[in-house]
Amino acid sequence: MSSNSFGKLFTVTTWGESHGKTIGCIVDGTPSKIPLKEEDIQSFLDKRRPGHSKFTTQRKEMDVVEILSGVFEGLTTGHPISLMIKNEDQRSKDYSDTKNIFRPGHADYTYWAKYGIHDYRGGGRSSARETAMRVAAGAIARKVIKNKLKNNIEITGALVQVGNNKINYKNWDQDYIYQNDFFCPDKDIIPTWGKKILEARKNGTSLGAIIEVRCKGIPVGLGEPIYDKLDSDLARAMMSINAVKGVEIGSGFDSVCFTGEDNIDEMRIKNGKPIFLSNNAGGIIGGISSGQEIIVRFCVKPTSSILTSRKTINKEMSEIEISTKGRHDPCVGIRAVPVGEAMMATTLADHCLRYF
Amino acid sequence: MSSNSFGKLFTVTTWGESHGKTIGCIVDGTPSKIPLKEEDIQSFLDKRRPGHSKFTTQRKEMDVVEILSGVFEGLTTGHPISLMIKNEDQRSKDYSDTKNIFRPGHADYTYWAKYGIHDYRGGGRSSARETAMRVAAGAIARKVIKNKLKNNIEITGALVQVGNNKINYKNWDQDYIYQNDFFCPDKDIIPTWGKKILEARKNGTSLGAIIEVRCKGIPVGLGEPIYDKLDSDLARAMMSINAVKGVEIGSGFDSVCFTGEDNIDEMRIKNGKPIFLSNNAGGIIGGISSGQEIIVRFCVKPTSSILTSRKTINKEMSEIEISTKGRHDPCVGIRAVPVGEAMMATTLADHCLRYF
Amino acid sequence: MSSNSFGKLFTVTTWGESHGKTIGCIVDGTPSKIPLKEEDIQSFLDKRRPGHSKFTTQRKEMDVVEILSGVFEGLTTGHPISLMIKNEDQRSKDYSDTKNIFRPGHADYTYWAKYGIHDYRGGGRSSARETAMRVAAGAIARKVIKNKLKNNIEITGALVQVGNNKINYKNWDQDYIYQNDFFCPDKDIIPTWGKKILEARKNGTSLGAIIEVRCKGIPVGLGEPIYDKLDSDLARAMMSINAVKGVEIGSGFDSVCFTGEDNIDEMRIKNGKPIFLSNNAGGIIGGISSGQEIIVRFCVKPTSSILTSRKTINKEMSEIEISTKGRHDPCVGIRAVPVGEAMMATTLADHCLRYF
Amino acid sequence: MSSNSFGKLFTVTTWGESHGKTIGCIVDGTPSKIPLKEEDIQSFLDKRRPGHSKFTTQRKEMDVVEILSGVFEGLTTGHPISLMIKNEDQRSKDYSDTKNIFRPGHADYTYWAKYGIHDYRGGGRSSARETAMRVAAGAIARKVIKNKLKNNIEITGALVQVGNNKINYKNWDQDYIYQNDFFCPDKDIIPTWGKKILEARKNGTSLGAIIEVRCKGIPVGLGEPIYDKLDSDLARAMMSINAVKGVEIGSGFDSVCFTGEDNIDEMRIKNGKPIFLSNNAGGIIGGISSGQEIIVRFCVKPTSSILTSRKTINKEMSEIEISTKGRHDPCVGIRAVPVGEAMMATTLADHCLRYF
Repeated sequence: MSSNSFGKLFTVTTWGESHGKTIGCIVDGTPSKIPLKEEDIQSFLDKRRPGHSKFTTQRKEMDVVEILSGVFEGLTTGHPISLMIKNEDQRSKDYSDTKNIFRPGHADYTYWAKYGIHDYRGGGRSSARETAMRVAAGAIARKVIKNKLKNNIEITGALVQVGNNKINYKNWDQDYIYQNDFFCPDKDIIPTWGKKILEARKNGTSLGAIIEVRCKGIPVGLGEPIYDKLDSDLARAMMSINAVKGVEIGSGFDSVCFTGEDNIDEMRIKNGKPIFLSNNAGGIIGGISSGQEIIVRFCVKPTSSILTSRKTINKEMSEIEISTKGRHDPCVGIRAVPVGEAMMATTLADHCLRYF
Repeated sequence: MSSNSFGKLFTVTTWGESHGKTIGCIVDGTPSKIPLKEEDIQSFLDKRRPGHSKFTTQRKEMDVVEILSGVFEGLTTGHPISLMIKNEDQRSKDYSDTKNIFRPGHADYTYWAKYGIHDYRGGGRSSARETAMRVAAGAIARKVIKNKLKNNIEITGALVQVGNNKINYKNWDQDYIYQNDFFCPDKDIIPTWGKKILEARKNGTSLGAIIEVRCKGIPVGLGEPIYDKLDSDLARAMMSINAVKGVEIGSGFDSVCFTGEDNIDEMRIKNGKPIFLSNNAGGIIGGISSGQEIIVRFCVKPTSSILTSRKTINKEMSEIEISTKGRHDPCVGIRAVPVGEAMMATTLADHCLRYF
Repeated sequence: MSSNSFGKLFTVTTWGESHGKTIGCIVDGTPSKIPLKEEDIQSFLDKRRPGHSKFTTQRKEMDVVEILSGVFEGLTTGHPISLMIKNEDQRSKDYSDTKNIFRPGHADYTYWAKYGIHDYRGGGRSSARETAMRVAAGAIARKVIKNKLKNNIEITGALVQVGNNKINYKNWDQDYIYQNDFFCPDKDIIPTWGKKILEARKNGTSLGAIIEVRCKGIPVGLGEPIYDKLDSDLARAMMSINAVKGVEIGSGFDSVCFTGEDNIDEMRIKNGKPIFLSNNAGGIIGGISSGQEIIVRFCVKPTSSILTSRKTINKEMSEIEISTKGRHDPCVGIRAVPVGEAMMATTLADHCLRYF
Repeated sequence: MSSNSFGKLFTVTTWGESHGKTIGCIVDGTPSKIPLKEEDIQSFLDKRRPGHSKFTTQRKEMDVVEILSGVFEGLTTGHPISLMIKNEDQRSKDYSDTKNIFRPGHADYTYWAKYGIHDYRGGGRSSARETAMRVAAGAIARKVIKNKLKNNIEITGALVQVGNNKINYKNWDQDYIYQNDFFCPDKDIIPTWGKKILEARKNGTSLGAIIEVRCKGIPVGLGEPIYDKLDSDLARAMMSINAVKGVEIGSGFDSVCFTGEDNIDEMRIKNGKPIFLSNNAGGIIGGISSGQEIIVRFCVKPTSSILTSRKTINKEMSEIEISTKGRHDPCVGIRAVPVGEAMMATTLADHCLRYF
């Protein structure tokens, strides 16, 4: 029941700190005889990798993944797959200034209160660096889903809001998502977002965001009742990502303002099969997939790594002020998109293994 | 890893169907020597009980709880506590009309697709009747928290929005919450809500709602990093309640529109101890409690049990229409308040046992 | 991770004390649409029931099982099955003499040290009364195995040694096992055993025993490598039965005196399929079933409930002597046979669900 | 619920194959602020390391352990500790002769049947090479126990029987155990064992063995009732070690021939504290430690890697004969001693974390 593990049958256990030599994970529960090579994973890591565009942090990490076990002659063996990534940009920075200071809005104080240890090198285990391994594991999760469902599912994450600028859903263009620096499905909003994020970078501030992750191709029946509901597990998965403060399924909080009549997804028969006339449920009813597209949204708070000075305290219980120096991500929500996709894939893979 | 169990060290496992003879649960992980009697649990059940006011369903259930094990001479033994409630209102209704029909918006179709079984007597296991056991277990959870923290914590659930009518947070009156039929902290909004809900009942429609659950008195350090974060577990807990479609912590989705500067909860020292100047984080940073008040909100969709006819299908894959007959809850969000409190208590009790 | 639960996918969670009103369990993980009625379970309980013959305790318990949930119109629903048995013989005995005394050889002292609670009414939760629920759950486990394997497996427990009198394996008669009071496969040893056990009863002493449980019909491939090996799980299962002090698989401790040549189960092909020329492995190699018969043996110590006075202490830390009054089981090993069978069935059912 | 993980609160998850580049494990649940460096672990690995004496295999592995995470400035952080060992002796041997053959007595056939993969390079995941990581984790487990109990416990494994030659328990000399090549506590039996093992090596055969592991210093109260009994968990732990076929606690199988009177460990008071007059229970009553020395024995079958030709089959379902070429361990029981110690330590560490 390690807190560093996710999943019950398909399990991902991560380890490593932001400024240690390496980070890694063990992926267990993968069926045998699935073709797997490092490039299959690398392509997903490349989407999350920092230093990509002028809109994300300039920290450079090549994030080259290595498979250490669980693959024999190009095929998974059914045994644990150990993955490792070297931390390249663990530069021997001088931390003497900030060594004893708890950065406000970060987990420095709560980790210190809990463990009596303060890993001042970028947060150590609490850093979002850990999410690189989630993305790596997510690549394997996608293969597991495909193997079990004998079906190509499609998981797509998209940025749908930056600060108070929301996309127009009518402009949704699935193909466009991977053709811009924001994983944005709405071409029209790109100039606004670009301007706001560059401004935020210049002003040393940061912006919140909302990410929507969708999955097409999941059959009816995935998920478990009561506590391991598919939506409960997705809520947990997304809320476990750094800086996430809210999760909703389908119409989510908007459904509060609907009447029962409007909110019900009515059913009809088409070609002998059940279909729904709407998808307010986001593809999950009673915790179990309905066969419709699964739709989850989560919000990411504006990062606390900003250049403006903020009030905080240090280990000696003195009052002090601090600001982040150097490189930072003005809108961490962008890089959260592939992480959200990965958590969707991992959650679904776990439920696929329970389903069959 | 039963899907009917919640918690890792403090575990609640429920069983039973809405129209079976009895429902029940096993509560395990309770430390020994805590005084426990049936009345301690009953008072919480009474808050959730249907048939209370004109604003909730008229189904009558006395929900009398019985302790079958785990208590000896008035004290918990450290062994599993088995609780049971008889289903009184399992009237031998005539289901011949609707026996083969999947009620739209309910889990009838997904359960049938998954299990090949259609418990047409009110949904069987998928019914919110199961939440009575959550409330019962929550009463024990509160005792566990108190036993471990040696501290009185205060868990309060409140209804903060009905349909599109939100409370005014400036009017928040903690004591008033249990003096009205809505668990509402804002006296001024009561007439509006009352009118809307009675109208909804009259029109046979239903309304969504938002519930806010707060907890005072949790020290810094509760929760685990990475996947078993306190907020991840709370998100899972709340999302597992019937009809819930969204969860947020602290400022939640609102924080998207904040800048980093505004969102950071700055820190100072007061009487030698760390304090925060705001609580956008909702009392949880990096998955670990900060010592501030814990704040969770979740939304409940408008129930699908409405009197208006809706399109659906039956087991023979024919198209048909259906409406709910008789008693129904125009705003299930009201009765979700004690359930949300119970899930907060259960989640915190579980983390208390991991903490010490 | 409740200590009162067994199994990962097929889970059994028991509750209740020897002298409480009722005992019970929740069986979860059962696939839907399996026919199940109370009589299916009752027949196994009747084999374990006390008061059967002059060789076991005269405590009378009818052990009538009731199904409270998880079955609808005669079929399992896939939801938790709640079972309950009333404790009939919880006679309001006068415990004033022995109330504060720790019975030596029983768990009274260790439970008290751990929990600070002393349930003097026959041991409470530590009593072997709990095994009635294991037997009930085992009946459902057998149905699960059959459902998954589409195959009739045969699980047979037998008593193979009482005190120092071992059966002659050459006389093994499978059908005879359920035709005598000892679950003994060797007709010739019955008179000896009968005489020894009656003598033990008369003298107020007790005898140890060895039970062998076999299972035919399990295909190759059941079990998991490394820690959840089929033999590891069987070892845990059997060792968890009250009074068990040793477990072995196949040739077990005898294999220590074999050479590698003799111990290897050689392989050949018969009718196009692999066969083995011996079964020293007891049907499990590398933790995974080989397709051969699975063979497990466990030993039960002579019970500590004897009429002879023994030295012990009480809650006041005074030295005292105690002997058991009244009814007792001279050889608890007899009644452990159906419990061993049930634990075999439950372990195999759990691995069947992981296998498919 | 990965099968590659052991423990509930103190968890060890291993990965890697006998002939992969590296093997490793994640140790989770370690409290923070415990001093830990690689040498603390290395000393235990050196005891298990092959190529040590003429009595074990000549395969050379330096088994140098590396700590990759979870330690900061010399102290554990409370986060996962990742350990890794390079496989040095993965010589590019020519396997063309034996590539398709299932070695009898090994897991080749069962793994192939389960996974459809045959890792012919020494068994892959099924190899006892994995136990190196158990020994490494066991070193950390010892530190956890000490940290929680504030007490020096002493865990000692010893070889007590080789083939049919058993030690004389009267000669037990604790200090002598680590002064000979066999972890043997009885000086007198050394010449006999040495002669037998060298003979076995010369003849290309192998010998079984019995290992006894003891632990002094565990207080009363460790362990959980019913299914997670301390003895159940130890039975599972030991049975999960490669080639183990039996486990017993305290007097174990010998207790079958005792009477109840003789088997009961009577209690007295000494210096105001409870003591026992014997230890047939092996320090565990009702699944919970009694405060006495904990005693577990397990047997290791004679290894199936022998030079004599044995009948088997290959992947084409043809009959064939095979013998092991080159280096082998005539009595694998010797190297199982530090593994048994490690599994004892890991099991106790897990229960220590549940205890406090």
